Amino acid sequence: MNTQRWKFTVEYDGSPFYGWQRQDDVSPTIQGTIEDAIFGFCQQRITIHVAGRTDAGVHARGQVFHVDLPERDMTPFELHKAINAHLYPKRVSILSAEKVGDDFHARFSATNKLYTYRILRRSAPPALESKRLWHFRRDLDADAMREGAKYLLGTHDFTTFRDSECQAKSPVKTLDRLEIETIDLGHGATEFRIHAEAKSFLHHQVRNMVGTLTLVGDGKWKPDDMKTALEAKDRTKGGPTAPPEGLYLVRVDYP
Amino acid sequence: MNTQRWKFTVEYDGSPFYGWQRQDDVSPTIQGTIEDAIFGFCQQRITIHVAGRTDAGVHARGQVFHVDLPERDMTPFELHKAINAHLYPKRVSILSAEKVGDDFHARFSATNKLYTYRILRRSAPPALESKRLWHFRRDLDADAMREGAKYLLGTHDFTTFRDSECQAKSPVKTLDRLEIETIDLGHGATEFRIHAEAKSFLHHQVRNMVGTLTLVGDGKWKPDDMKTALEAKDRTKGGPTAPPEGLYLVRVDYP
Repeated sequence: MNTQRWKFTVEYDGSPFYGWQRQDDVSPTIQGTIEDAIFGFCQQRITIHVAGRTDAGVHARGQVFHVDLPERDMTPFELHKAINAHLYPKRVSILSAEKVGDDFHARFSATNKLYTYRILRRSAPPALESKRLWHFRRDLDADAMREGAKYLLGTHDFTTFRDSECQAKSPVKTLDRLEIETIDLGHGATEFRIHAEAKSFLHHQVRNMVGTLTLVGDGKWKPDDMKTALEAKDRTKGGPTAPPEGLYLVRVDYP
Repeated sequence: MNTQRWKFTVEYDGSPFYGWQRQDDVSPTIQGTIEDAIFGFCQQRITIHVAGRTDAGVHARGQVFHVDLPERDMTPFELHKAINAHLYPKRVSILSAEKVGDDFHARFSATNKLYTYRILRRSAPPALESKRLWHFRRDLDADAMREGAKYLLGTHDFTTFRDSECQAKSPVKTLDRLEIETIDLGHGATEFRIHAEAKSFLHHQVRNMVGTLTLVGDGKWKPDDMKTALEAKDRTKGGPTAPPEGLYLVRVDYP
């Protein structure tokens, strides 16, 4: 049977899922939910291939996956609507579909990824965005965090910010952007949005960088302690792992 | 017993509540939830007074209420934290507390209110913000909506945009701002934020104005049909009521 490779962009709320990857012993996962919807659409069990797996609780505004589907006479718009009909109301939503060549691979063809980490800095718990950001009660010095973040830009051995279960062959990555945006919400509240871009990241790298930056924002560390931690190449010299609910995979870029 | 009048600013997710107002036959309501928390805090049943009641499903980022509490030696920060401890995790969160004089009234002292209505214009259902905005599948022409909105600015008889159960004495209101902001979300999606400001509004006025503006955006009406509808002073000549989940009371101003 002839197949056509498709690229899909997808949004999801990570909070009700055990992460992206389909697993035998836990359910639901995002991959399993989408593969079930594709089965509902074409009555075939087909494996999908993702740009970057996300952990339990992590959200996506623009995750990408590819899949080879049996050839059909459908426009991209019709196809994304048909699969969404099988996803609703599962908190996973296909934003767009695109025909690609057989040499396209969601993970290996990606040239850049943007993650954004959201922190709500205020005393009051979030009423409208619970499980959508990290609620941080103490003050954070944004300028100190910006100064600390600079030490992580560029090509480094990121072992200090790497999860012990990370399966990447090399701990060396190139971080192209680590920017701290602040939004004044009034009543003494601030939303922090930390934007991180790279071709690829180590497991937990963004959450470990963010957790460590909050030590600087909180005054427990000086900005140049980030440099010392990075150079130690030792996970135990880094700060805590920020919780998953603040993290969003926003965009994956291709040539 | 001596009392002190307090002004509170509060955020809430309207989706799990039967609106603001405490009622005998339905529960939970936002007012009931807050009055229960105040009871938990000081063991007294005390009525709170709101700036503007909101309907079931409508959210607030900055609702205001006042209440007379028994005098205690507490700072505003301590007080808002103490009441939040009794609210958690009920999707209602006190943002700030402030001591005010006995002549302050959350509703009658207000000089301006800002409501924002959020529309997600795209085919794909919202995965991350379900019940937080109105999902609108068809195209909307923002410029046509802006042209139509201009006819509503200023002082008018707003009977066309008034709910039949509205209890206001007069249908004449002064609309100071009706602005349509658009945010490009990529993948052919746009978020519309419609900002409406006035000293006070009729019941359902914002949702009826927004619902009618979507007729213009959708091409079913011409922009100046808004003028004809307004001048008819007849609810049946207006458009549909936009659903509650897109509406936020953002801010209430005082002298």
